[in-house]
Formats: sequence, C-alpha cells, structure tokens
Amino acid sequence: MSDNTTTFMPPGSASELEQGRALTPKFDADGLVTCVATDVATGEVLMVAHMNAEALAKTIASGEAWYYSRSRRALWRKGETSGHIQRVVEMRVDCDQDAVWIKVTQVGAGACHTGRRSCFYRRVPLGAEAAGKELVFDPGERAFDPDVVYGG
Amino acid sequence: MSDNTTTFMPPGSASELEQGRALTPKFDADGLVTCVATDVATGEVLMVAHMNAEALAKTIASGEAWYYSRSRRALWRKGETSGHIQRVVEMRVDCDQDAVWIKVTQVGAGACHTGRRSCFYRRVPLGAEAAGKELVFDPGERAFDPDVVYGG
Repeated sequence: MSDNTTTFMPPGSASELEQGRALTPKFDADGLVTCVATDVATGEVLMVAHMNAEALAKTIASGEAWYYSRSRRALWRKGETSGHIQRVVEMRVDCDQDAVWIKVTQVGAGACHTGRRSCFYRRVPLGAEAAGKELVFDPGERAFDPDVVYGG
Repeated sequence: MSDNTTTFMPPGSASELEQGRALTPKFDADGLVTCVATDVATGEVLMVAHMNAEALAKTIASGEAWYYSRSRRALWRKGETSGHIQRVVEMRVDCDQDAVWIKVTQVGAGACHTGRRSCFYRRVPLGAEAAGKELVFDPGERAFDPDVVYGG
C-alpha cells in the first residue's frame, strides 16, 4: 500500500468530493483507484486497470499512462515492455473520485497483453435465453503476436 | 458477499479466462466485477460501477443495467428511483474477466446522481505543472436537478 497522503490531499465530505475543484482521490483499502482508458479517436474502451497515488501523479505529470499492477504489486509504465505506450489526451475524474477516465492515443498495435487492440475482445450474448451461451470473439484476429512483442 | 457459484461457473486457468468462450467472471473478494457503461451513441463514459453475480445475470437476461451498490450493500436496478434506466445494446468482457463494458442507451437526462449526464463531469489538468491545479467542470451545467428527480 502506498503512502498516498504525500501526493494528494485526503478526500473530504461527499459534497466536497462531488462538487469541489480539488483532486482528492478516494483510494480503496489497497490504495488504488480504477482507471478506464478509451481510444481518443474511436471511443473504444481499451482497458480497465488501477492506479495508486504514484501512478496517478506520474500520469498527470508526464501525460503518459502509468498503472499499478495488482498481480505484480508494482508500479507499471504502460508499454514499458511492449513499446505500446498510451499518450493521455484528457483525464477526467468521477463524482466520488474513486475512478478516473483517460482518453489516450494508443501507440503500437494494441493495449492488451493477449495481442488485441482492446482487452474487451469478446462479446457477451444478451437476452432471456443467453445464460451459458458462448462468448463471441470480436474481432476474431489478434492485432499483434504477444510472443514476439513480449519475447515469448 | 453473494453466492456467485450458483449463477456462473468458477474461473479456470489464466489461459481459459483469456482465450475461452465461457463467461466465468473473476469476482473479487467482495463478489464484484467492475462495470464501465458508455453511451452507445457518443462513446462517452457515463459511469463506472460494480456488479455482483446477480446483477450481472439480471443485466444479461433483461438487457437493462443492474448494479450492486457497495455503499448501500444492495442490488440496484439503474434508474429505479430516477427513471434514468440504461438499455444495454452490447456487453463485452475483458481478458481476465474481472471487468465488463456495456454500451447503453441512457434513458432520461443523465446517469449521474449529481444531475450530470456522465459521472465524469470534471477534467483533471495535465502536465508537469498540473499538480494541485483545480479541476475543471465540463460541462459546467447540470443536465437535471437531482433534488427534483430523487425527491430532495
């Protein structure tokens, strides 16, 4: 867990969080906020990930996306291995300041470590009869070969 | 915490989660996945919220968005008070199946309980000198009066 108090002021009341002009992120028990990254050109959701205070501060200061990997428990500059960095065109924060939305220019072939442009490469069938139906790969093809990009 | 095993099969290996055709959501310790709702017409992120197994199953079956309110610890049909329901046009799941993305038709004036169309009504200034700078309300005006819609 990060010492988030060094970078951002702690959140105030609900009214201050929602109506205020101060960025006081409401980090969860693990010190994280949710981040949604969309493609600034297409509006497509590329990925959902997390930021700790350091990742959020670095993203704001640098204009490139930094995240915090929960599985690796480490700060993570998006694209540090793949070269598929994200240039942040705009950042927004939600009403209760526990989520941020970044509109990015995705550099390289894609955002997803599986080789797709977006992590959301499967559609979920909807409707009363949809329970248990198979996911649909859409698009069906990878945008890049992760074994090549990540060195196998 | 919900008994999620009654509705969805438990997640398998990383490979099965990422490359499989079965929806086996990776619920967190609280039994929740993250849900991003975007406006199907504009691509705008309307809100980020959470679904437990029941909310996810109801959303899939009904084609209308159901969430789980962490603060109220209750299943929550979006729009049940405001009338601002969300019709789900498409649902997608991400690589590790701990987040879903729904493209919705937002009924009514907005998705946010503060009276805005989107919960992300404030921009965060970016750049090396941005730390501590004030958030920018954009748009500046509310889309509806929450006191009227939610009965004060």
